[in-house]
Amino acid sequence: MNNYSYKKLEKFILDVFLKIGYNQEQAVLAAKVLISADLRGVDSHGIARLSGYIRLWEAKRINTNPTIKITHETPSTAVVDGDAALGLVAAPKAMEIAIEKAKNVGTGWVSVKNSNHYGIAGYHSMMALDHDMIGISMTNASPLVSPTFSTERLLGTNPISVAIPTKNQPAFVADMATTTAANGKLEILQRKKMDCPTGWVQDQSGAITTDSFGVKNGGALLPLGGDKEHGSHKGYILGSIVDIFSAVLSGANYGPWVPPFVSFLQPPADPVGEGIGHFFGAMRVDAFRPKEEFLDHIDNWITRFRQAETIKGQERVVIPGDPEREMELERKKNGIPLLDPVVEDLKSLADKFGLDF
Amino acid sequence: MNNYSYKKLEKFILDVFLKIGYNQEQAVLAAKVLISADLRGVDSHGIARLSGYIRLWEAKRINTNPTIKITHETPSTAVVDGDAALGLVAAPKAMEIAIEKAKNVGTGWVSVKNSNHYGIAGYHSMMALDHDMIGISMTNASPLVSPTFSTERLLGTNPISVAIPTKNQPAFVADMATTTAANGKLEILQRKKMDCPTGWVQDQSGAITTDSFGVKNGGALLPLGGDKEHGSHKGYILGSIVDIFSAVLSGANYGPWVPPFVSFLQPPADPVGEGIGHFFGAMRVDAFRPKEEFLDHIDNWITRFRQAETIKGQERVVIPGDPEREMELERKKNGIPLLDPVVEDLKSLADKFGLDF
Repeated sequence: MNNYSYKKLEKFILDVFLKIGYNQEQAVLAAKVLISADLRGVDSHGIARLSGYIRLWEAKRINTNPTIKITHETPSTAVVDGDAALGLVAAPKAMEIAIEKAKNVGTGWVSVKNSNHYGIAGYHSMMALDHDMIGISMTNASPLVSPTFSTERLLGTNPISVAIPTKNQPAFVADMATTTAANGKLEILQRKKMDCPTGWVQDQSGAITTDSFGVKNGGALLPLGGDKEHGSHKGYILGSIVDIFSAVLSGANYGPWVPPFVSFLQPPADPVGEGIGHFFGAMRVDAFRPKEEFLDHIDNWITRFRQAETIKGQERVVIPGDPEREMELERKKNGIPLLDPVVEDLKSLADKFGLDF
Repeated sequence: MNNYSYKKLEKFILDVFLKIGYNQEQAVLAAKVLISADLRGVDSHGIARLSGYIRLWEAKRINTNPTIKITHETPSTAVVDGDAALGLVAAPKAMEIAIEKAKNVGTGWVSVKNSNHYGIAGYHSMMALDHDMIGISMTNASPLVSPTFSTERLLGTNPISVAIPTKNQPAFVADMATTTAANGKLEILQRKKMDCPTGWVQDQSGAITTDSFGVKNGGALLPLGGDKEHGSHKGYILGSIVDIFSAVLSGANYGPWVPPFVSFLQPPADPVGEGIGHFFGAMRVDAFRPKEEFLDHIDNWITRFRQAETIKGQERVVIPGDPEREMELERKKNGIPLLDPVVEDLKSLADKFGLDF
């Protein structure tokens, strides 16, 4: 495992997206979204996925000359058609629209159809912070998760991100899959050939398993909670709400019809919509109370929780966004560690496009 | 345990609220909200709480002649001052404002300060359904929940409810505490002197316990997930978002400053805001796509999930709102069962106010 400067990696991603036909502005944006995952420590959603996006493009499932447009709107809402672009390109456009609407009427809410994987949810919600707005971002995703009591995979890990602006404290930035554990955490255990805790995965019959390969062997990820006794119906509720806001509101595919991210699985032959779906929100804090009042109180909220007494042996109570922000500082300084298989993968991409890596 | 007609119970609640000084319209509304909990099977939030509300009134913490008004607004947002009314009265007013704003600009978002306990979250979100809107309702609550890694009780069970209108299927109505288990479930085990599963409660030192009296003995309810390995930081995130949307946006008390529901505990001497806070949203489905399209697809979503294959031994995959709707049908027919201590409590109230029970 070697460390690479994030600037070098970002430039490489940019060059690859230019090679497949995106214009400079779009490629810059997509590279910025993708590398933000590596910087924030969400390695499963960063440059390690670049070859996956390229395979989707090779399978003609990515449009590199998209016309991303509003198909329906009111003063506070819009549906955006991503025109089969990378979600990395379509999602920031949609979030910009939400922010513009919030400037005009206090809040903006945008549901997106005909899109693809959009990177980390937190990139998009955080776009609101510079505008003194609360940002909300969610997306549906490849079906890997079973509702409580089911053996079928009907939902994605369907993350929710909420970013809240602050004064002197760092921003509150939550970004969470609605499953007990994100698939990326499972992949880490798979690489180490280690078992996973109970409550993460069920096998093909729906029985709880600690086999970290359980999902690959026909099982499913479990909704946050793990089992009914521990509230898995609540994780199932959250994943369902994300699916409905992202896709039933917009006209994207939902539930088991969501086209899989991996190019070797075909999208369902009977789609109920177009592409995958996202949902974004932006709320001006001064649409509720004077900005300074809000900022003073959110700082006070964070300070109080940061100072909470800890359980013996625990260092601190974490504020959402702390670990990712600290990781970003560290990785900007010391570089981003890439596993050897990821490096090999990127070298193949470099060869394919006549680039250096 | 005897069954009582919900109409009789609703009338009794109405009479009590009239006795403490609410006008006819307000008392009718408050009774309707409170009895909806009993009808839907959320016994902990229904008529069993009536004497608790009255004790708060006796402690001069409830205003029965409130001027509930907007203190700040934009076309899509408002902050509402509940003027220390029962949440049962203030919350439906605030949700009405959200609905009116959604009629005008597509969505409406209302944060409420200076309120009190508002009954079940689901009553308020469901108000949107008749308008072909998605309804959202959340509230902060008495601090009983510790953030992951903390021994302090800094959050309430902070529920989230989302109601989604449908065509031929019954509405999708989610209503969930952001803890592993709601306090009401714990109370049931306490009455039976039974232990609770791990993941529900920690003791005073922050250690996991199965003592269902753990919270009463200085411990805390656990955020959804139970422990870090099972995603309790996600439950903590959700509870935090509810707290911030309900109180930091509005100017209510948040975190450990939320005044407790029980009258024998004094509100903190150093409040950071007024009363407790709620947050409501209403989104017109036709602000996103033509209504008929949305309704067809949400029905299709529900149908597909309802037909999902079940794990052996499980009867069905539950759609959010199914159990409560079925309970309501059953209880409207057969009456609402009340435990003997609840009946005794109501008889005392009847004596106090010169009413019959």
